[in-house]
Amino acid sequence: MSGFVSFVSSGPGDPDLLTVKAVKRLEAADAVLFDDLSSGPILNCARDDADLVGVGKRAGRPSPKQDHVSKLLVDYALSGAKVVRLKSGDSGVFGRLEEEITALRAAGIGYEIIPGVTAASAAAAAAGIPLTRRLTARRLQYITGHDVTGELPDDLNLTALADPNATTVVYMGKRTFAALAELLITHGLPPETPAMLAMAVSTPDQQLSHHTVGELPKLLRELKTTAPVLILYGPLAEPE
Amino acid sequence: MSGFVSFVSSGPGDPDLLTVKAVKRLEAADAVLFDDLSSGPILNCARDDADLVGVGKRAGRPSPKQDHVSKLLVDYALSGAKVVRLKSGDSGVFGRLEEEITALRAAGIGYEIIPGVTAASAAAAAAGIPLTRRLTARRLQYITGHDVTGELPDDLNLTALADPNATTVVYMGKRTFAALAELLITHGLPPETPAMLAMAVSTPDQQLSHHTVGELPKLLRELKTTAPVLILYGPLAEPE
Repeated sequence: MSGFVSFVSSGPGDPDLLTVKAVKRLEAADAVLFDDLSSGPILNCARDDADLVGVGKRAGRPSPKQDHVSKLLVDYALSGAKVVRLKSGDSGVFGRLEEEITALRAAGIGYEIIPGVTAASAAAAAAGIPLTRRLTARRLQYITGHDVTGELPDDLNLTALADPNATTVVYMGKRTFAALAELLITHGLPPETPAMLAMAVSTPDQQLSHHTVGELPKLLRELKTTAPVLILYGPLAEPE
Repeated sequence: MSGFVSFVSSGPGDPDLLTVKAVKRLEAADAVLFDDLSSGPILNCARDDADLVGVGKRAGRPSPKQDHVSKLLVDYALSGAKVVRLKSGDSGVFGRLEEEITALRAAGIGYEIIPGVTAASAAAAAAGIPLTRRLTARRLQYITGHDVTGELPDDLNLTALADPNATTVVYMGKRTFAALAELLITHGLPPETPAMLAMAVSTPDQQLSHHTVGELPKLLRELKTTAPVLILYGPLAEPE
Protein backbone atom coordinates (compact mmCIF):
# COMPACT_ATOMS: atom_id res chain seq x y z
CA MET A 1 0.00 0.00 0.00
CA SER A 2 1.43 3.34 -1.01
CA GLY A 3 0.69 6.68 0.59
CA PHE A 4 -0.27 10.00 -0.84
CA VAL A 5 1.32 13.43 -0.79
CA SER A 6 -0.60 16.69 -0.42
CA PHE A 7 1.41 19.75 -1.29
CA VAL A 8 -0.27 22.19 1.06
CA SER A 9 0.18 25.93 0.59
CA SER A 10 0.44 27.47 4.03
CA GLY A 11 -0.20 31.07 2.99
CA PRO A 12 2.03 33.90 4.25
CA GLY A 13 2.20 32.95 7.94
CA ASP A 14 -1.07 33.77 9.75
CA PRO A 15 -2.80 30.43 10.46
CA ASP A 16 -6.11 32.17 9.68
CA LEU A 17 -4.89 32.57 6.10
CA LEU A 18 -4.74 28.82 5.61
CA THR A 19 -7.55 27.57 3.43
CA VAL A 20 -10.17 25.29 4.96
CA LYS A 21 -8.80 22.50 2.76
CA ALA A 22 -5.26 23.07 4.00
CA VAL A 23 -6.44 22.78 7.61
CA LYS A 24 -8.24 19.51 6.78
CA ARG A 25 -5.12 18.02 5.19
CA LEU A 26 -2.95 19.08 8.12
CA GLU A 27 -5.40 17.55 10.59
CA ALA A 28 -5.40 14.26 8.69
CA ALA A 29 -1.66 14.02 8.05
CA ASP A 30 0.53 11.23 9.43
CA ALA A 31 3.61 13.28 8.58
CA VAL A 32 4.21 16.96 7.83
CA LEU A 33 7.39 18.01 6.02
CA PHE A 34 7.73 21.76 6.44
CA ASP A 35 10.02 24.59 5.41
CA ASP A 36 11.33 27.14 7.89
CA LEU A 37 9.09 29.90 6.61
CA SER A 38 5.88 27.98 6.97
CA SER A 39 6.46 26.62 10.44
CA GLY A 40 5.29 28.05 13.75
CA PRO A 41 1.65 28.25 14.70
CA ILE A 42 0.48 26.61 11.48
CA LEU A 43 1.93 23.31 12.66
CA ASN A 44 -0.51 23.38 15.58
CA CYS A 45 -3.16 22.19 13.10
CA ALA A 46 -1.37 18.84 12.84
CA ARG A 47 -2.23 15.87 15.04
CA ASP A 48 -0.19 15.40 18.22
CA ASP A 49 1.05 12.05 16.97
CA ALA A 50 1.99 13.25 13.48
CA ASP A 51 5.66 13.30 12.50
CA LEU A 52 6.76 16.92 12.06
CA VAL A 53 9.90 17.11 9.95
CA GLY A 54 11.71 20.39 9.26
CA VAL A 55 13.37 20.39 5.86
CA GLY A 56 13.87 24.14 5.62
CA LYS A 57 16.10 25.94 3.23
CA ARG A 58 17.11 29.54 3.73
CA ALA A 59 17.70 32.21 1.12
CA GLY A 60 21.37 32.83 0.36
CA ARG A 61 22.53 29.41 1.49
CA PRO A 62 23.13 26.71 -1.07
CA SER A 63 20.52 23.96 -1.00
CA PRO A 64 22.32 20.68 -1.32
CA LYS A 65 19.42 19.02 0.39
CA GLN A 66 16.78 19.11 -2.35
CA ASP A 67 17.52 15.50 -3.30
CA HIS A 68 17.33 14.60 0.33
CA VAL A 69 13.92 16.29 0.72
CA SER A 70 12.55 14.49 -2.32
CA LYS A 71 13.85 11.17 -1.03
CA LEU A 72 12.34 11.74 2.40
CA LEU A 73 9.00 12.60 0.80
CA VAL A 74 9.06 9.42 -1.29
CA ASP A 75 10.08 7.27 1.68
CA TYR A 76 7.31 8.62 3.89
CA ALA A 77 4.73 8.05 1.15
CA LEU A 78 6.00 4.54 0.39
CA SER A 79 5.50 3.67 4.07
CA GLY A 80 1.77 4.23 3.44
CA ALA A 81 1.58 7.57 5.23
CA LYS A 82 -0.66 10.49 4.44
CA VAL A 83 2.03 13.07 3.90
CA VAL A 84 1.62 16.84 3.88
CA ARG A 85 4.42 18.76 2.22
CA LEU A 86 3.87 22.24 3.63
CA LYS A 87 5.11 25.13 1.47
CA SER A 88 4.87 28.79 2.37
CA GLY A 89 2.64 31.17 0.41
CA ASP A 90 1.11 29.57 -2.67
CA SER A 91 3.18 26.47 -3.35
CA GLY A 92 2.94 27.04 -7.12
CA VAL A 93 4.63 30.44 -6.90
CA PHE A 94 8.41 30.09 -6.41
CA GLY A 95 7.75 27.02 -4.27
CA ARG A 96 10.12 24.66 -6.12
CA LEU A 97 7.39 22.10 -6.43
CA GLU A 98 8.62 20.57 -9.61
CA GLU A 99 11.63 18.66 -8.35
CA GLU A 100 9.53 16.98 -5.67
CA ILE A 101 6.70 16.21 -8.09
CA THR A 102 9.16 14.61 -10.49
CA ALA A 103 10.45 12.36 -7.70
CA LEU A 104 6.90 11.34 -6.72
CA ARG A 105 5.94 10.53 -10.30
CA ALA A 106 9.07 8.47 -10.76
CA ALA A 107 8.10 6.47 -7.68
CA GLY A 108 4.48 6.12 -8.79
CA ILE A 109 3.12 8.04 -5.82
CA GLY A 110 -0.10 10.05 -6.10
CA TYR A 111 -0.17 13.68 -5.12
CA GLU A 112 -2.37 16.75 -5.08
CA ILE A 113 -1.67 20.45 -4.80
CA ILE A 114 -3.72 22.65 -2.47
CA PRO A 115 -3.38 26.25 -3.64
CA GLY A 116 -3.00 29.10 -1.16
CA VAL A 117 -2.61 32.79 -0.55
CA THR A 118 0.65 34.09 -1.97
CA ALA A 119 2.60 36.72 -0.02
CA ALA A 120 1.95 39.43 -2.64
CA SER A 121 -1.80 39.21 -2.11
CA ALA A 122 -1.39 39.30 1.65
CA ALA A 123 1.00 42.26 1.55
CA ALA A 124 -1.31 44.40 -0.57
CA ALA A 125 -4.29 43.40 1.55
CA ALA A 126 -2.43 44.36 4.72
CA ALA A 127 -1.69 47.77 3.19
CA GLY A 128 -5.36 48.19 2.30
CA ILE A 129 -4.70 48.39 -1.44
CA PRO A 130 -5.38 46.21 -4.51
CA LEU A 131 -2.55 44.71 -6.59
CA THR A 132 -4.13 45.72 -9.90
CA ARG A 133 -5.70 49.06 -10.80
CA ARG A 134 -8.35 49.53 -13.42
CA LEU A 135 -6.60 52.06 -15.64
CA THR A 136 -3.02 52.26 -14.45
CA ALA A 137 -1.92 48.77 -13.41
CA ARG A 138 -3.57 46.17 -15.57
CA ARG A 139 -0.60 43.82 -15.57
CA LEU A 140 0.70 42.16 -12.42
CA GLN A 141 4.00 40.30 -12.39
CA TYR A 142 5.97 38.28 -9.87
CA ILE A 143 9.68 37.56 -10.04
CA THR A 144 12.21 36.10 -7.67
CA GLY A 145 15.19 38.19 -6.61
CA HIS A 146 17.62 35.34 -6.87
CA ASP A 147 18.13 32.15 -8.82
CA VAL A 148 19.52 28.87 -7.49
CA THR A 149 22.99 30.38 -7.22
CA GLY A 150 21.66 33.14 -4.94
CA GLU A 151 22.31 35.83 -7.55
CA LEU A 152 19.95 38.00 -9.59
CA PRO A 153 18.70 35.81 -12.46
CA ASP A 154 20.56 36.60 -15.69
CA ASP A 155 17.57 36.28 -18.00
CA LEU A 156 15.56 39.21 -16.66
CA ASN A 157 13.13 40.75 -19.14
CA LEU A 158 13.90 44.36 -18.29
CA THR A 159 11.35 45.76 -20.73
CA ALA A 160 8.71 43.86 -18.80
CA LEU A 161 10.12 44.77 -15.39
CA ALA A 162 10.72 48.49 -16.07
CA ASP A 163 7.14 48.95 -17.32
CA PRO A 164 5.62 51.80 -15.27
CA ASN A 165 2.13 50.47 -16.00
CA ALA A 166 2.55 47.15 -14.23
CA THR A 167 2.60 46.22 -10.57
CA THR A 168 5.72 44.17 -9.95
CA VAL A 169 6.35 42.03 -6.89
CA VAL A 170 9.86 40.82 -6.13
CA TYR A 171 10.01 37.78 -3.89
CA MET A 172 13.20 37.19 -1.91
CA GLY A 173 14.76 40.38 -3.26
CA LYS A 174 16.42 41.83 -0.17
CA ARG A 175 19.98 41.13 -1.21
CA THR A 176 19.71 41.75 -4.96
CA PHE A 177 17.17 44.57 -5.31
CA ALA A 178 19.85 47.29 -5.34
CA ALA A 179 21.32 45.76 -8.50
CA LEU A 180 17.85 45.27 -9.97
CA ALA A 181 16.80 48.87 -9.22
CA GLU A 182 19.84 50.16 -11.09
CA LEU A 183 18.91 48.07 -14.13
CA LEU A 184 15.28 49.17 -13.94
CA ILE A 185 16.19 52.86 -13.81
CA THR A 186 18.64 52.43 -16.71
CA HIS A 187 15.76 50.86 -18.65
CA GLY A 188 13.50 53.83 -18.06
CA LEU A 189 11.61 53.17 -14.83
CA PRO A 190 11.35 56.52 -13.00
CA PRO A 191 13.25 56.35 -9.67
CA GLU A 192 10.25 58.03 -8.03
CA THR A 193 8.02 55.03 -8.86
CA PRO A 194 6.16 54.10 -5.65
CA ALA A 195 7.49 51.05 -3.85
CA MET A 196 6.43 49.12 -0.81
CA LEU A 197 8.56 47.03 1.49
CA ALA A 198 6.73 44.23 3.28
CA MET A 199 8.32 42.03 5.91
CA ALA A 200 6.95 39.02 7.75
CA VAL A 201 3.56 39.65 6.15
CA SER A 202 0.53 38.59 8.21
CA THR A 203 2.62 37.61 11.24
CA PRO A 204 2.93 39.49 14.57
CA ASP A 205 6.25 40.85 13.26
CA GLN A 206 4.73 42.32 10.09
CA GLN A 207 6.24 45.60 8.91
CA LEU A 208 5.03 47.58 5.91
CA SER A 209 6.63 50.78 4.68
CA HIS A 210 6.22 52.99 1.66
CA HIS A 211 9.09 54.37 -0.39
CA THR A 212 10.19 54.85 -3.98
CA VAL A 213 12.23 52.51 -6.18
CA GLY A 214 15.15 54.97 -5.98
CA GLU A 215 15.11 55.04 -2.18
CA LEU A 216 14.95 51.31 -1.57
CA PRO A 217 18.54 50.20 -2.26
CA LYS A 218 20.04 52.27 0.59
CA LEU A 219 17.27 51.19 2.92
CA LEU A 220 17.71 47.51 2.08
CA ARG A 221 21.45 47.69 2.62
CA GLU A 222 20.85 48.93 6.16
CA LEU A 223 18.05 46.49 6.87
CA LYS A 224 18.78 43.94 9.56
CA THR A 225 16.18 41.21 9.36
CA THR A 226 15.95 37.51 8.79
CA ALA A 227 12.22 37.79 7.99
CA PRO A 228 11.01 37.16 4.44
CA VAL A 229 11.12 40.42 2.49
CA LEU A 230 8.76 41.30 -0.34
CA ILE A 231 9.18 44.35 -2.56
CA LEU A 232 6.29 45.78 -4.58
CA TYR A 233 6.65 48.62 -7.06
CA GLY A 234 4.58 50.30 -9.73
CA PRO A 235 1.55 52.57 -9.76
CA LEU A 236 0.48 51.41 -6.32
CA ALA A 237 -2.68 52.90 -4.90
CA GLU A 238 -2.39 55.25 -1.95
CA PRO A 239 -2.16 53.17 1.23
CA GLU A 240 -4.71 53.57 3.99
CA MET B 1 -22.09 54.26 15.29
CA SER B 2 -20.66 53.35 11.94
CA GLY B 3 -20.12 49.84 10.64
CA PHE B 4 -17.15 48.18 9.05
CA VAL B 5 -16.53 46.58 5.69
CA SER B 6 -14.48 43.43 5.13
CA PHE B 7 -13.51 42.84 1.54
CA VAL B 8 -13.44 39.06 1.60
CA SER B 9 -11.73 37.10 -1.16
CA SER B 10 -13.83 34.04 -1.85
CA GLY B 11 -11.21 32.09 -3.79
CA PRO B 12 -12.08 30.41 -7.09
CA GLY B 13 -15.36 28.75 -6.09
CA ASP B 14 -14.78 25.71 -3.87
CA PRO B 15 -15.88 26.70 -0.34
CA ASP B 16 -12.93 24.66 0.98
CA LEU B 17 -10.64 27.18 -0.72
CA LEU B 18 -11.91 29.99 1.47
CA THR B 19 -9.40 30.99 4.11
CA VAL B 20 -10.24 30.40 7.74
CA LYS B 21 -10.41 34.18 8.17
CA ALA B 22 -12.87 34.53 5.28
CA VAL B 23 -15.15 31.94 6.87
CA LYS B 24 -15.01 33.81 10.19
CA ARG B 25 -15.95 37.11 8.53
CA LEU B 26 -18.82 35.48 6.62
CA GLU B 27 -20.13 33.88 9.80
CA ALA B 28 -20.07 37.22 11.62
CA ALA B 29 -21.53 39.36 8.83
CA ASP B 30 -24.84 41.22 9.12
CA ALA B 31 -24.84 41.73 5.36
CA VAL B 32 -23.01 40.07 2.47
CA LEU B 33 -22.75 41.86 -0.87
CA PHE B 34 -21.67 39.29 -3.44
CA ASP B 35 -20.82 39.07 -7.14
CA ASP B 36 -22.28 36.41 -9.41
CA LEU B 37 -19.01 34.52 -9.61
CA SER B 38 -18.52 34.17 -5.90
CA SER B 39 -22.01 33.11 -4.98
CA GLY B 40 -23.35 29.57 -4.54
CA PRO B 41 -22.22 27.30 -1.74
CA ILE B 42 -19.88 29.92 -0.28
CA LEU B 43 -22.89 31.92 0.88
CA ASN B 44 -23.88 28.99 3.11
CA CYS B 45 -21.20 30.22 5.51
CA ALA B 46 -23.28 33.32 6.23
CA ARG B 47 -25.80 33.48 9.09
CA ASP B 48 -29.42 32.63 8.28
CA ASP B 49 -30.49 36.13 9.27
CA ALA B 50 -27.79 37.96 7.30
CA ASP B 51 -28.83 40.09 4.33
CA LEU B 52 -27.50 38.49 1.14
CA VAL B 53 -27.35 41.02 -1.66
CA GLY B 54 -26.33 40.08 -5.20
CA VAL B 55 -24.56 42.94 -6.96
CA GLY B 56 -23.06 40.87 -9.73
CA LYS B 57 -21.55 42.16 -12.91
CA ARG B 58 -20.91 39.97 -15.89
CA ALA B 59 -18.09 40.14 -18.40
CA GLY B 60 -19.02 41.77 -21.67
CA ARG B 61 -21.89 43.80 -20.27
CA PRO B 62 -21.33 47.42 -19.37
CA SER B 63 -21.33 48.06 -15.64
CA PRO B 64 -23.35 51.16 -14.97
CA LYS B 65 -23.93 49.86 -11.49
CA GLN B 66 -20.52 50.43 -9.90
CA ASP B 67 -21.69 53.68 -8.30
CA HIS B 68 -24.74 51.87 -7.08
CA VAL B 69 -22.66 49.09 -5.50
CA SER B 70 -20.42 51.61 -3.74
CA LYS B 71 -23.44 53.50 -2.46
CA LEU B 72 -25.09 50.32 -1.19
CA LEU B 73 -21.85 49.36 0.59
CA VAL B 74 -21.63 52.77 2.26
CA ASP B 75 -25.31 52.73 3.25
CA TYR B 76 -25.06 49.28 4.83
CA ALA B 77 -21.95 50.30 6.75
CA LEU B 78 -23.48 53.59 7.91
CA SER B 79 -26.40 51.61 9.35
CA GLY B 80 -23.85 50.10 11.75
CA ALA B 81 -23.71 46.71 10.06
CA LYS B 82 -20.77 44.35 9.79
CA VAL B 83 -20.59 44.16 6.03
CA VAL B 84 -18.78 41.55 3.94
CA ARG B 85 -18.07 42.54 0.37
CA LEU B 86 -17.41 39.15 -1.21
CA LYS B 87 -15.15 39.16 -4.28
CA SER B 88 -14.19 36.11 -6.29
CA GLY B 89 -10.60 34.86 -6.38
CA ASP B 90 -8.18 37.20 -4.63
CA SER B 91 -9.98 40.52 -4.35
CA GLY B 92 -6.78 42.45 -5.07
CA VAL B 93 -6.33 40.80 -8.48
CA PHE B 94 -8.71 42.32 -11.06
CA GLY B 95 -11.29 42.70 -8.32
CA ARG B 96 -12.04 46.39 -8.90
CA LEU B 97 -11.54 47.08 -5.23
CA GLU B 98 -10.38 50.62 -5.65
CA GLU B 99 -13.65 52.34 -6.55
CA GLU B 100 -15.34 50.84 -3.52
CA ILE B 101 -12.44 51.67 -1.22
CA THR B 102 -12.50 55.28 -2.40
CA ALA B 103 -16.20 55.50 -1.56
CA LEU B 104 -15.63 54.05 1.92
CA ARG B 105 -12.77 56.45 2.66
CA ALA B 106 -14.85 59.41 1.51
CA ALA B 107 -17.56 58.32 3.95
CA GLY B 108 -15.08 57.74 6.77
CA ILE B 109 -15.85 54.03 7.02
CA GLY B 110 -13.21 51.57 8.16
CA TYR B 111 -12.39 48.53 6.03
CA GLU B 112 -10.04 45.60 5.79
CA ILE B 113 -9.03 43.31 2.93
CA ILE B 114 -8.87 39.54 3.44
CA PRO B 115 -6.62 38.08 0.74
CA GLY B 116 -7.50 34.82 -0.98
CA VAL B 117 -6.59 32.20 -3.55
CA THR B 118 -6.57 33.63 -7.05
CA ALA B 119 -7.91 31.51 -9.92
CA ALA B 120 -4.46 31.13 -11.51
CA SER B 121 -3.10 29.35 -8.44
CA ALA B 122 -6.13 27.10 -8.27
CA ALA B 123 -5.99 26.24 -11.98
CA ALA B 124 -2.34 25.23 -11.86
CA ALA B 125 -2.89 23.28 -8.66
CA ALA B 126 -5.83 21.43 -10.24
CA ALA B 127 -3.59 20.51 -13.18
CA GLY B 128 -0.92 19.24 -10.77
CA ILE B 129 1.67 21.76 -11.93
CA PRO B 130 3.43 24.82 -10.49
CA LEU B 131 2.99 28.31 -11.98
CA THR B 132 6.71 29.08 -11.86
CA ARG B 133 9.58 26.80 -12.93
CA ARG B 134 13.07 27.03 -11.58
CA LEU B 135 14.95 27.54 -14.82
CA THR B 136 12.36 28.15 -17.52
CA ALA B 137 9.57 30.24 -15.99
CA ARG B 138 10.94 32.60 -13.40
CA ARG B 139 8.49 35.39 -14.17
CA LEU B 140 4.76 35.02 -13.66
CA GLN B 141 2.32 37.62 -15.00
CA TYR B 142 -1.42 38.15 -14.88
CA ILE B 143 -3.42 40.28 -17.26
CA THR B 144 -7.08 40.80 -17.93
CA GLY B 145 -8.49 40.04 -21.38
CA HIS B 146 -10.68 43.08 -21.46
CA ASP B 147 -10.78 46.59 -20.09
CA VAL B 148 -13.84 48.50 -18.87
CA THR B 149 -15.13 48.80 -22.43
CA GLY B 150 -15.05 45.00 -22.85
CA GLU B 151 -12.26 45.18 -25.42
CA LEU B 152 -8.63 44.06 -25.29
CA PRO B 153 -6.74 46.77 -23.36
CA ASP B 154 -4.89 49.09 -25.74
CA ASP B 155 -1.78 49.49 -23.61
CA LEU B 156 -0.58 45.88 -23.72
CA ASN B 157 3.16 45.43 -23.20
CA LEU B 158 3.65 42.87 -25.95
CA THR B 159 7.36 42.43 -25.24
CA ALA B 160 6.39 41.33 -21.75
CA LEU B 161 3.48 39.17 -22.92
CA ALA B 162 5.27 37.44 -25.82
CA ASP B 163 8.16 36.41 -23.56
CA PRO B 164 8.55 32.63 -23.91
CA ASN B 165 10.28 32.48 -20.51
CA ALA B 166 7.32 33.70 -18.49
CA THR B 167 4.12 32.01 -17.41
CA THR B 168 1.24 34.27 -18.42
CA VAL B 169 -2.30 33.99 -17.11
CA VAL B 170 -5.10 35.77 -18.91
CA TYR B 171 -8.17 36.40 -16.78
CA MET B 172 -11.49 36.88 -18.56
CA GLY B 173 -9.89 36.31 -21.95
CA LYS B 174 -12.46 34.11 -23.71
CA ARG B 175 -13.70 36.72 -26.12
CA THR B 176 -10.46 38.58 -26.82
CA PHE B 177 -7.75 35.90 -26.72
CA ALA B 178 -7.91 35.29 -30.49
CA ALA B 179 -6.86 38.90 -31.10
CA LEU B 180 -4.25 38.67 -28.35
CA ALA B 181 -2.79 35.42 -29.73
CA GLU B 182 -2.30 37.04 -33.12
CA LEU B 183 -0.42 39.94 -31.52
CA LEU B 184 1.69 37.56 -29.42
CA ILE B 185 2.70 35.47 -32.41
CA THR B 186 3.51 38.62 -34.42
CA HIS B 187 5.75 39.66 -31.53
CA GLY B 188 7.65 36.40 -31.60
CA LEU B 189 5.86 34.00 -29.27
CA PRO B 190 6.01 30.56 -30.92
CA PRO B 191 2.46 29.35 -31.79
CA GLU B 192 3.41 25.96 -30.34
CA THR B 193 3.86 27.49 -26.86
CA PRO B 194 1.95 25.28 -24.40
CA ALA B 195 -1.37 26.68 -23.26
CA MET B 196 -3.99 25.56 -20.80
CA LEU B 197 -7.66 26.37 -20.76
CA ALA B 198 -9.30 26.28 -17.33
CA MET B 199 -13.01 26.72 -16.79
CA ALA B 200 -15.01 26.96 -13.56
CA VAL B 201 -11.86 26.11 -11.62
CA SER B 202 -12.37 24.21 -8.35
CA THR B 203 -16.14 23.83 -8.89
CA PRO B 204 -18.02 20.63 -9.84
CA ASP B 205 -18.07 21.98 -13.43
CA GLN B 206 -14.30 22.39 -13.64
CA GLN B 207 -12.76 21.63 -17.02
CA LEU B 208 -9.05 21.72 -17.78
CA SER B 209 -7.54 21.10 -21.20
CA HIS B 210 -4.12 21.39 -22.71
CA HIS B 211 -3.39 23.01 -26.07
CA THR B 212 -0.99 25.44 -27.71
CA VAL B 213 -1.31 29.20 -28.11
CA GLY B 214 -1.86 28.72 -31.87
CA GLU B 215 -4.70 26.25 -31.33
CA LEU B 216 -6.65 28.22 -28.76
CA PRO B 217 -8.37 30.89 -30.88
CA LYS B 218 -10.40 28.36 -32.94
CA LEU B 219 -11.29 26.43 -29.83
CA LEU B 220 -12.40 29.53 -27.94
CA ARG B 221 -14.59 30.65 -30.83
CA GLU B 222 -16.46 27.35 -30.66
CA LEU B 223 -16.64 27.31 -26.89
CA LYS B 224 -20.12 27.58 -25.44
CA THR B 225 -19.84 28.38 -21.77
CA THR B 226 -20.87 31.05 -19.32
CA ALA B 227 -18.30 29.81 -16.78
CA PRO B 228 -15.27 31.94 -15.97
CA VAL B 229 -12.46 31.11 -18.39
CA LEU B 230 -8.79 31.33 -17.54
CA ILE B 231 -6.01 30.93 -20.11
CA LEU B 232 -2.44 30.05 -19.10
CA TYR B 233 0.47 29.95 -21.52
CA GLY B 234 4.23 29.66 -21.38
CA PRO B 235 6.71 26.93 -20.50
CA LEU B 236 4.11 25.06 -18.47
CA ALA B 237 5.22 21.85 -16.80
CA GLU B 238 3.82 18.58 -18.11
CA PRO B 239 0.41 18.01 -16.52
CA GLU B 240 -0.27 14.93 -14.43
